[in-house]
Amino acid sequence: MQLTFLGTGAGLPSPSRSVSALAIQIGREVLLFDCGEGTQRQFMLSNLSFMKVNNIFITHFHGDHFLGLPGLIQSMNFSGREEDLHIYGPEGAIEIVSSLATIGAFQPLYNIHINELSHNDEVDLGFCSVIALAADHTIPALSFIIEEPERKGKFNNQKAQKLGIPKGPLYSQLQMGKAVTVGSRLIEPDEVVGPSRPGRKIVYSGDTRPNKELVDAARNAEILVHEATLDSSLEEGALEYGHSTARAAAEIALNAEVKKLILTHISTRYEDNNILEEEAREIFPNTLLAHDLMTIPVRYGDFQQ
Amino acid sequence: MQLTFLGTGAGLPSPSRSVSALAIQIGREVLLFDCGEGTQRQFMLSNLSFMKVNNIFITHFHGDHFLGLPGLIQSMNFSGREEDLHIYGPEGAIEIVSSLATIGAFQPLYNIHINELSHNDEVDLGFCSVIALAADHTIPALSFIIEEPERKGKFNNQKAQKLGIPKGPLYSQLQMGKAVTVGSRLIEPDEVVGPSRPGRKIVYSGDTRPNKELVDAARNAEILVHEATLDSSLEEGALEYGHSTARAAAEIALNAEVKKLILTHISTRYEDNNILEEEAREIFPNTLLAHDLMTIPVRYGDFQQ
Repeated sequence: MQLTFLGTGAGLPSPSRSVSALAIQIGREVLLFDCGEGTQRQFMLSNLSFMKVNNIFITHFHGDHFLGLPGLIQSMNFSGREEDLHIYGPEGAIEIVSSLATIGAFQPLYNIHINELSHNDEVDLGFCSVIALAADHTIPALSFIIEEPERKGKFNNQKAQKLGIPKGPLYSQLQMGKAVTVGSRLIEPDEVVGPSRPGRKIVYSGDTRPNKELVDAARNAEILVHEATLDSSLEEGALEYGHSTARAAAEIALNAEVKKLILTHISTRYEDNNILEEEAREIFPNTLLAHDLMTIPVRYGDFQQ
Repeated sequence: MQLTFLGTGAGLPSPSRSVSALAIQIGREVLLFDCGEGTQRQFMLSNLSFMKVNNIFITHFHGDHFLGLPGLIQSMNFSGREEDLHIYGPEGAIEIVSSLATIGAFQPLYNIHINELSHNDEVDLGFCSVIALAADHTIPALSFIIEEPERKGKFNNQKAQKLGIPKGPLYSQLQMGKAVTVGSRLIEPDEVVGPSRPGRKIVYSGDTRPNKELVDAARNAEILVHEATLDSSLEEGALEYGHSTARAAAEIALNAEVKKLILTHISTRYEDNNILEEEAREIFPNTLLAHDLMTIPVRYGDFQQ
């Protein structure tokens, strides 16, 4: 599981920051969150192929979050895509995305399914679930929680040996939850397999004011990717435009007890300095300021370094 | 007068080539021809400001030529634009551009005028005229001829001195076409001022099959910017998709007797080689292969090196 920050700028791109797009690779699948103008080319500059994207989640319909959709849809077609593509977004998604999907002299040769999500809607993709959470922005907007299913419990090798279980197929059966017989003794799985462990959890805020509900939803996440358009000296502007400061993002991370905070959606005014990261680290030390094409592997919360 | 190639790729961008966009700077104005996805950011990487663009000409409505419009329109607004913006294109422009100009939760604070152009329509901007020419592509498409007005004739200093005209305001009057009196002799302007000289002419093909009418329209142009999507070994593909090969572009340049040919709209298959330029130079030696952010100053055809 790996995050690739394809675009980390705010409303206006800059020479170093393209507008919003975040790719989350889980196994062979790539989920795309937001698709600002230029996302297809940012894919080309990364080590990810946009042909692996089957699901796109748009947080809201401000231009910097979705205007890369028609170009990506057309380039997928140009590159021979045949698989269905699923696009999710808040209310308005069907009208806006369907008009963009066929704009100009274009008709895709694959199917596009557009779905509108509301607060608490869950998209179950099997290898993970994506849960929508109403964000607090100037227009209808969503945050997204990406959660893997629970993993099987840890297998206790030492105890298995002590019980005389021969290595091999019996180990697998126990891990699958089936009891086995060794000699004349019935061994239940929970004698050697620990309790189920949570999968990894990533939270992507999209554009939002600091949101108490996001704190609850983000609890214990491996990574919280939170917008930090401005620094705390510009709190008034953040309030006016429905954004968060770096300080507010750090407070969310602290209260949600996440493992790592990554700041994104960075205003062009911070092109030459690092004050957003510094401001956030005072409150939540394990903070990183995203930059375009940055990749972050996602470890399990119980991973031992 | 200077050309800046903002995007030189074909249908698919590549790591080194953004999709179609060509800026022509004339004095303080910048004309934009085509506006593929990412054009606003290509401006930021060039030394041109998109705030100087008042007129945008779209050759046709394939995605790689216009999908940068909504982002550019929004970023102009974000950057405080108040001046009217004029957008020109072939039939369909009003429907497509007006739907893009307000897509998502956006309403520009400046006026946008959208105009549909047909074969031989002329837009007179004062400092230059832009003439539309029907191109030969798979959908309605235009080529554009950009022509400056005629310049005044050359002032013959030697002859003026011989006639005893004192340097200063009388020189200006003669150059403005007014007769002057020196002593008792009436001197007509054409005694010291040569015939009017043509302004500079640039031709931009857009996407097109080799077009005989373009040869006539491009006659004696300082620069012909012609698409060369493929090399001549792929002539069949060029025919199928309504494109030109580098060889065909060179033949157009040769027959039109232009001063310089610049090849653009380059397929990703030529990412690592220069065969298009080589092929064209065999026929028309003064050929350049465009690359992104390349700038080319435009000299008058009678400019003496």
